[in-house]
Amino acid sequence: MSDAIAFARAHRGRFRQELDDFLRIPSVSARSEHNADLRRAAEWVRSSMTAAGLSARIFPTEGHPVVVGEWKQAAAGAPTILVYGHYDVQPPEPLELWDSPPFEPDIRDGRIYARGSADDKGQLFLHIKALEAHLATRGSLPVNVIVLAEGEEEVGSPNLAPFVQNHLDLLAADTVVISDSAMFAPGQPSLLFSLRGMAYFEIHATGPSTDLHSGGYGGAVANPANALARIVGDLHDAEGRIAIPGFYDDVAPPPPDILSRIRALPFDAEAWTLETGVPPVGGEDAYSPLERLWTRPTCDVNGFLSGYTGEGAKTVLPAKAVAKVSFRLVPNQTPERVRELTERHLERVAPPGISLELVELHGGRPWQARLEGPVFEAAARALERSFATRPVLTGEGGSIPIVVELEEMLGANSLLIGFALPGANMHAPNEWFAVDSFERGIDTLIHLYDELAAGTGNG
Amino acid sequence: MSDAIAFARAHRGRFRQELDDFLRIPSVSARSEHNADLRRAAEWVRSSMTAAGLSARIFPTEGHPVVVGEWKQAAAGAPTILVYGHYDVQPPEPLELWDSPPFEPDIRDGRIYARGSADDKGQLFLHIKALEAHLATRGSLPVNVIVLAEGEEEVGSPNLAPFVQNHLDLLAADTVVISDSAMFAPGQPSLLFSLRGMAYFEIHATGPSTDLHSGGYGGAVANPANALARIVGDLHDAEGRIAIPGFYDDVAPPPPDILSRIRALPFDAEAWTLETGVPPVGGEDAYSPLERLWTRPTCDVNGFLSGYTGEGAKTVLPAKAVAKVSFRLVPNQTPERVRELTERHLERVAPPGISLELVELHGGRPWQARLEGPVFEAAARALERSFATRPVLTGEGGSIPIVVELEEMLGANSLLIGFALPGANMHAPNEWFAVDSFERGIDTLIHLYDELAAGTGNG
Repeated sequence: MSDAIAFARAHRGRFRQELDDFLRIPSVSARSEHNADLRRAAEWVRSSMTAAGLSARIFPTEGHPVVVGEWKQAAAGAPTILVYGHYDVQPPEPLELWDSPPFEPDIRDGRIYARGSADDKGQLFLHIKALEAHLATRGSLPVNVIVLAEGEEEVGSPNLAPFVQNHLDLLAADTVVISDSAMFAPGQPSLLFSLRGMAYFEIHATGPSTDLHSGGYGGAVANPANALARIVGDLHDAEGRIAIPGFYDDVAPPPPDILSRIRALPFDAEAWTLETGVPPVGGEDAYSPLERLWTRPTCDVNGFLSGYTGEGAKTVLPAKAVAKVSFRLVPNQTPERVRELTERHLERVAPPGISLELVELHGGRPWQARLEGPVFEAAARALERSFATRPVLTGEGGSIPIVVELEEMLGANSLLIGFALPGANMHAPNEWFAVDSFERGIDTLIHLYDELAAGTGNG
Repeated sequence: MSDAIAFARAHRGRFRQELDDFLRIPSVSARSEHNADLRRAAEWVRSSMTAAGLSARIFPTEGHPVVVGEWKQAAAGAPTILVYGHYDVQPPEPLELWDSPPFEPDIRDGRIYARGSADDKGQLFLHIKALEAHLATRGSLPVNVIVLAEGEEEVGSPNLAPFVQNHLDLLAADTVVISDSAMFAPGQPSLLFSLRGMAYFEIHATGPSTDLHSGGYGGAVANPANALARIVGDLHDAEGRIAIPGFYDDVAPPPPDILSRIRALPFDAEAWTLETGVPPVGGEDAYSPLERLWTRPTCDVNGFLSGYTGEGAKTVLPAKAVAKVSFRLVPNQTPERVRELTERHLERVAPPGISLELVELHGGRPWQARLEGPVFEAAARALERSFATRPVLTGEGGSIPIVVELEEMLGANSLLIGFALPGANMHAPNEWFAVDSFERGIDTLIHLYDELAAGTGNG
C-alpha cells in the first residue's frame, strides 16, 4: 500500500466530515435566492483546494463563480491533467419525498444521503482528497494538475466556455478528467464511451387574455391546456419515436464495436423494475433498454403547469399553459438544429386561438470518447487496482454539455471516470453516494495520477 | 313608483356598504383553511335576513352551513317561492392577475370588483334587499318566501340535497327562483332555458416510484407527464369532438323552437374577441358559438401539474402527473354515465408502465326550463318593468347542479333570472358586478314578488 493510500485511509473520518460540511451548503444554481449559497460553496471549494496544497483562486463570472486550483511543478515532460467538476446542485424539490432533509447529510445503509452527494460535490471532493493525499505524503504530484470547479453545470454552464476561452494559458492541459457519472454496477467500475447531449425548452401556450369560467366560455374558447397537452402528447408516435419531422436525420447509429459491447453487457430488468418501480418500457420499441439509454435521443416532459392545481375543483379555463420539455441528443445532433426543427414543428401544429412560444433554457452537444491510447489504459489500471476488476465501457444517458466545449477549446481529450452507483437518485429525491464509492474513489484517483504519469511515459 | 321601489332607491348607499362587508369575507369553499370564513359568511347572511324581516336560522351540515330565512304569512292561496343562492365563492387565484385585491371590493367604471360580486353573493343579496324593501314599506310580502343560502355550491353542493331531503316541510315551495347567471347583454335581460351539467375529475398518472434523472433513465422509462399529455390531448378529435367512445350517445339535440331562438340571437364575435383576447374558435367546428356554449357538451382541462415547474431547468423525469378535467353536460347526459365511459376509455388507453386513476370531484345533471306558464310570464313582466324591454331566452354554459335536484325533491319548477353581465369574470380574476345590475336587479325582484302573486292568481 502506497503512503498516499495509507494517508487517505487514515484520514477518512475527517474527509467524511469535510464532505458533510460541503453538502450542507444548498448551492442550487437554478434558483436566484441561493446566490449567496453558491458563493459560499465556491469559497468552500477554494479553501479545500488550498488545504490540499493547491494554489487556488475564485474567478467571478456573470453568473456563479469559477474556482481554479493548480499545481504545476511536476517533472519536465509530465502531462498536465485538468480535473473538471461542479459545486452546484439540482433543486431538491419535491421536498416531501426526501426521507432526510436534502442538505443535512444522513448516513443510512452505507450510503451518504444528500443533494449533491453523487452529482457532483461528492465526486469533485474525491479528486481534491486524492491530490491532498499525494501532496501530504510526497510533497509533489506525478503530473501537473489543474482543478476547475464551476457553479453552473446544472443550468447548462452558460459562463464556463467564455471563462475557459479567456484563460486558455491557465487551463492548458493534455487530458480532461471528469468524475460526474456512475459505475455500471456495484463493484463493476466503468469508463464512459459517450454522453448524450441536451436541448431543454419551455413551450408556452397562450389562449384567452385571462382565466375564464369553464361554463360560460367552455366550448367556444380554445383551451391552452388541452392544446398544449395535445401538442406535447403528439411529440411521440405510437412506436415511441419522436414525431418531429426531420428529428432523426442527424441521428448516427453507434459504431459497431460499441454496439457489440453494449449487447454484451447484462441488463437486469428485474433490478431496474425494483429500483424504479416500473419496467423498462419507455422509449422506442425497436431498441433494447441500454441502447435506448445510451445511443438514442429522447423527448421528456420535465414539468407541466396550467390552471388551478390546488385542492378541490375550480371550473376555470386557463389563460395559459407551460411545459418544460427536454431532448437528450446523440451524435450527430446539435441543440441548434433541434431547436429549429421544434420551432418549425410548433408553427405547423399551433391550433387557431392558441399562440405558441418556444423558450430555450439550455443545450449541449453529445460527446464521444476516444477509446484508444494511454490515458484510457491508465484509467483502466487505476480502477483495476482499487476494484480488483477491469472496467467495462458504458454510455451515459445524461449530459455534461461542457465536455465537448472543453475538448475543443483546450485541444484535449476527456476521460470520464465516475463512482456513483446506479439508482443514486441524481436529480431526484434521496440522492445518495455509497460510502464504498467514496473510499475506493479516492484510492482510484490516487492511483490514477500515478498511472497517468506512468502510462504517458513520465512516471 | 311603488313605495318599496322608493325605499330601495333611498337606501342604495347603505345596501352597497352592506354588500361590501359581505364581499370582504373570503368564503372560499374549496379550501379548508377558509372554514371559519364560511361560518362567518353564513352568520352574515343570517343576520342580513333577520334585518330584512325574515325569520332566519343557520343549519350546520357535514360541510359548510346552510342558512334558511322564511316569511310565510301571505294571504291564503298565495304561492310559496323558494329563493336559492350561495354565499361561497371560487378560489381567487391567480392573485397576481387581480387589479385590486379579490376580497377588497373596489368600484371602477360603474362596476363592483370583488370575488363573489356576481357569483353569487351579489345576486343573493339582491333578493334579501328586495324582500327588505317590501317588508319595510308594507309590513308583508305578496307571496310566501323561503330563502335558502348554501356554502358549497362551488364544490358541487355535496350536503345540500340531504339537507333538503331532511327539511321538506320547511322548504316546500311552488317555484324555485335563482339569480346566479347572466343577462344576454347590457340592457338586455334574459331568462334561462337551460343549464349545462358537470362532471369534474382528476386523472392521476403514476409512473416510477420516485422522480428520476431524465438523462440516466430517459428513453427507458414511460414518462407519466408525456403519457398524461397524450391521453388528455387525445380527448378531442381533429374536429373538436370529444373522442371518448359513446360520449355522444346520450346527447340530445335541442328542441327546434330553442334552436330557432338561439339562431335568432345576435352573436358579436368582435366583442367576444375583444373581451376574451381570442376568437370563438374552440370546440366543435360544426356548431355556432352560442350553440356550442349552450347546447353542446365540453371537455376542458382546468389544471395540469407535473414535475418541476419552478424557475430554470430541472432535468427530472416526473414520478406522476395530475390533470383536472371537467366535462359540461347537456340533456340527456349524466355525470354517472360520463364517469363510466371515461373510466372505460382510460383503461383502454393506459400505456405500459403508467397507472391511471380517475377521481371524481363533483358532478351535476343538466337542467331544462319549463318555458310556458305564469311564472315565466311574471318574470318577463318584472324584467320589462325594470329594463323597459322584454327578456330574451338564453342558455347558460355553466352549471348549478342543485337545480335539478331541488326541482325533483320539492316537486317545483325553477326560474333562473340572472343579472350579471357577459364578461363578469365569474371564476376568473377581476370578477365584477355592474352597479346598474345591482340597482335594476333589486327593482326587478321587488316587481317579481308582486308579479308572481298577480301572475299566479293571488295578487
